[in-house]
Amino acid sequence: MGPRGREKPGILDADGIIRDVSDLVDDWDGLALDDAVLKQIQAIDLFSLPRLDPNARIGPCVADVGKFICIGLNYVDHAVETGAEVPSEPVLFFKATSAICGPNDLLEIPRRSEKTDWEVELGVVIGKTAKYISEVEALEHVAGYCVVHDVSERGFQLEGTGQWVKGKSADTFGPIGPWLVTRDEVDDPQKLSMWLDVNGEAMQRGSTSTMIFSVAHLVSYVSQFMSLQPGDIISTGTPPGVGLSMSPSKYLRAGDTVSLGIEGLGQQTQRCVDAL
Amino acid sequence: MGPRGREKPGILDADGIIRDVSDLVDDWDGLALDDAVLKQIQAIDLFSLPRLDPNARIGPCVADVGKFICIGLNYVDHAVETGAEVPSEPVLFFKATSAICGPNDLLEIPRRSEKTDWEVELGVVIGKTAKYISEVEALEHVAGYCVVHDVSERGFQLEGTGQWVKGKSADTFGPIGPWLVTRDEVDDPQKLSMWLDVNGEAMQRGSTSTMIFSVAHLVSYVSQFMSLQPGDIISTGTPPGVGLSMSPSKYLRAGDTVSLGIEGLGQQTQRCVDAL
Repeated sequence: MGPRGREKPGILDADGIIRDVSDLVDDWDGLALDDAVLKQIQAIDLFSLPRLDPNARIGPCVADVGKFICIGLNYVDHAVETGAEVPSEPVLFFKATSAICGPNDLLEIPRRSEKTDWEVELGVVIGKTAKYISEVEALEHVAGYCVVHDVSERGFQLEGTGQWVKGKSADTFGPIGPWLVTRDEVDDPQKLSMWLDVNGEAMQRGSTSTMIFSVAHLVSYVSQFMSLQPGDIISTGTPPGVGLSMSPSKYLRAGDTVSLGIEGLGQQTQRCVDAL
Repeated sequence: MGPRGREKPGILDADGIIRDVSDLVDDWDGLALDDAVLKQIQAIDLFSLPRLDPNARIGPCVADVGKFICIGLNYVDHAVETGAEVPSEPVLFFKATSAICGPNDLLEIPRRSEKTDWEVELGVVIGKTAKYISEVEALEHVAGYCVVHDVSERGFQLEGTGQWVKGKSADTFGPIGPWLVTRDEVDDPQKLSMWLDVNGEAMQRGSTSTMIFSVAHLVSYVSQFMSLQPGDIISTGTPPGVGLSMSPSKYLRAGDTVSLGIEGLGQQTQRCVDAL
């Protein structure tokens, strides 16, 4: 919580009050996401900690993210709407970590953008180094879950030369949070409903139950190609209802408001402005 | 210099002796790459600083890299050898920052790899935040240059589903250094010869003079799609002579030794081992 670059780490108590944990951890970075550290913090009487200003800005729910890994076309119903084939193995791409921002920060429409689009996604936050791990061990390496907005510029992503990263990486294209919900508080990551509205109108309605590759499969799969480090995020793909797939296509403009959320993980709201 | 995770920042003096600057900067990270900080350090009498053990391991020449951005097919003669068309605008992709290692560390051949390939590249290290900058201003945002080995697994990169990142991101696939050479010490980044040998046999011979898009163009171009931060690296593509383009193709195996270098920027040597 707090102004950009000067946030204090907080934790929600059972009454929904945000408590200041800056005496316990430097920030919610990879070091703090270790199982042992999280257990220590869970053992503390939260009501004894000072309150943070509930009206302060909420920053990103993970600090110092090393890798922001995304999975493309991972929902059966979204693959169908885009006309793409259901992939035989996960499609990976990266977003720039400099795109990460708080859940309710302004969303900058890039210069020369005509096709800025929305994607609500389940974010998986790594808590323990994972390299060549099996699907059975995968979830032990997850610290928790969060809402990710994988904002995408479809012209930059698909119409230029080369790779998707060009349309995925602008500043503010990666709001994360509001909360990192630890894995023990999520009964089943494959049974979460998710939604996204633009200017109050329903755009995306879905559930993590229609994922093609499960969270456990994805963590194991990615770990075959690169090591996963505490604080890395895997954003697991989006359900149907993106602007690109509408007829005619519909995109974000300055002045629009996007709201999105996932069951149990909180919600985000961004107002769109033109990038300076 | 020093064991992994416990390196001390060093600087080469005019006699080629490595001096310890750990009293001046925490590490060679984005904060230390600011023009003002570099100027302060340049004003110091290096001969007054303690020496570092010249036999210690050399770590990566930049610490805490935020983004490891690569340019595909950026040499006219390499585009020709791969049979690809000369791109009309730069092709961007990312490597995982967790792939970064020291210039002479062991190179891990990933499990299930059959096509681990080499690419000597000029790395451009950002010193100042760059967003929507012009080509004319671009080089002011560069702290300096280094050798990058963009190790690539061609099967993972090209034969699976999706994006190149899968074949570019294994641990040790990004040796950088040995030195970060500040931009004032490089007369013309577009006139540097570069080379790569495998087991003492010449594989790549080229020059940054055959780049399709210049360093200044690339920095400006990338800054239109994402903001560049101090400590980010842009690896600017490879000249001809990669294993994929040979007839028959030739790839790295455990026991092989790769050496590579760029004029004025030093050289790297890696011995290949199987990933555990």
